[in-house]
Amino acid sequence: MTLNRVRALIFDTFGTTVDWRSGVAREAAAFLIQHAAHDIDPSDFADAWRQRYNPAMEEVRSGRRPFTRLDVLHRENLEAILPDFGIKPANLPAAALDELNLAWHRLDPWPDALPGLQRLRSGFMIAPFSNGNIILLTEMAKRAGLPWDVILGAEIVQAYKPTPESYLRTADVLGMRPEEIGLVAAHNSDLAAGRACGLKIVFVPRPAEHGPGQATDLLPEQDWDVIARDFEDLADQLGL
Amino acid sequence: MTLNRVRALIFDTFGTTVDWRSGVAREAAAFLIQHAAHDIDPSDFADAWRQRYNPAMEEVRSGRRPFTRLDVLHRENLEAILPDFGIKPANLPAAALDELNLAWHRLDPWPDALPGLQRLRSGFMIAPFSNGNIILLTEMAKRAGLPWDVILGAEIVQAYKPTPESYLRTADVLGMRPEEIGLVAAHNSDLAAGRACGLKIVFVPRPAEHGPGQATDLLPEQDWDVIARDFEDLADQLGL
Repeated sequence: MTLNRVRALIFDTFGTTVDWRSGVAREAAAFLIQHAAHDIDPSDFADAWRQRYNPAMEEVRSGRRPFTRLDVLHRENLEAILPDFGIKPANLPAAALDELNLAWHRLDPWPDALPGLQRLRSGFMIAPFSNGNIILLTEMAKRAGLPWDVILGAEIVQAYKPTPESYLRTADVLGMRPEEIGLVAAHNSDLAAGRACGLKIVFVPRPAEHGPGQATDLLPEQDWDVIARDFEDLADQLGL
Repeated sequence: MTLNRVRALIFDTFGTTVDWRSGVAREAAAFLIQHAAHDIDPSDFADAWRQRYNPAMEEVRSGRRPFTRLDVLHRENLEAILPDFGIKPANLPAAALDELNLAWHRLDPWPDALPGLQRLRSGFMIAPFSNGNIILLTEMAKRAGLPWDVILGAEIVQAYKPTPESYLRTADVLGMRPEEIGLVAAHNSDLAAGRACGLKIVFVPRPAEHGPGQATDLLPEQDWDVIARDFEDLADQLGL
């Protein structure tokens, strides 16, 4: 087993551990009905919101903007997409937008995530390693019962994935060499960046992350150290 | 109840949640026997090590030294005290000192801490708020079963208690106003600094922290918002 020196497993969150699209669509649906936008598909709204995720972080990664936590970026992105759906942010109370922004704190895990993590936790330190900020990940975990040992991620290391700093500073915080850390994710780009920093790599495909017709990340794009169907299969493969 | 707007309880760790003196003495005892220092009381060794704790952090608090995590300060302090006990650090393998330094990761909770935290967790977000660094607190929690929702502390906010920054940046990370946070500690000085920043205050005396003959922090020095015998009594008082 190529993970035999690994002591900590760190998990991508949005898409890998939790189903962001359904969760955001669920909360957007209620919001859209309340604001008389009956003809909008809440999943399209979720997709539009998510589409601004990477460009917003790129402002930080590029150094054009100081580190800014994801709750703030999500809130800005929400205001930015509303006009595309015929809603004027200025007509809404700020509290309604603040509340919808918390949809990202209330995402549900994929069905295998909780039982898988419970098993994996008996053999490894487990943590989210996400671009989500600390309170986002903490509230998500508390609501869903995700049994993390510690909340890690971009806010801890003040760097967004997939910059090398995000992986290497996380190893430093853990006091571990990169090869003592296993990165679990459904996204080949995240995994490639982690491998370049020396982490061990676990690919778990999430073919429903982007809804029907998903065309990306259906297959491993490199010879990752472990390829698992889901978190329970990963626990099986690791003998836990 | 004066905590009725509080959403998160943050706990001092060394002394309040765990018994650092007995834990360090236990590991020091084995170390001292191995290095032929039979006539040394391991509790004296623990006290000497701890005595350098505050002065080392003061270098950081004063700005004379950039933020340095506690594992590093503990390791330096260990080398500094060894000659006082007749041991030359240069004669020892670094690995033996590294291992003893991890005694701070392996401290046992006071008997009421686990059952109390399990109950408090059902009503509040709970976290350590310690000068200990992230991996120290994470390994301590995993070994002892401390059911924290998130690991907070000096390394997250890059500031040691009792600086105002340590409390205020923690509130910022949590996205909470200071009065939405309850600080639980056995040390009046920590509590006074937290109150000055607007936090709600819970005093839990730990009269055995410093062993027999403890003369400090036996009584509340201000009209703290809650005074509890221990973590279970706190859960009782909060109706959990």
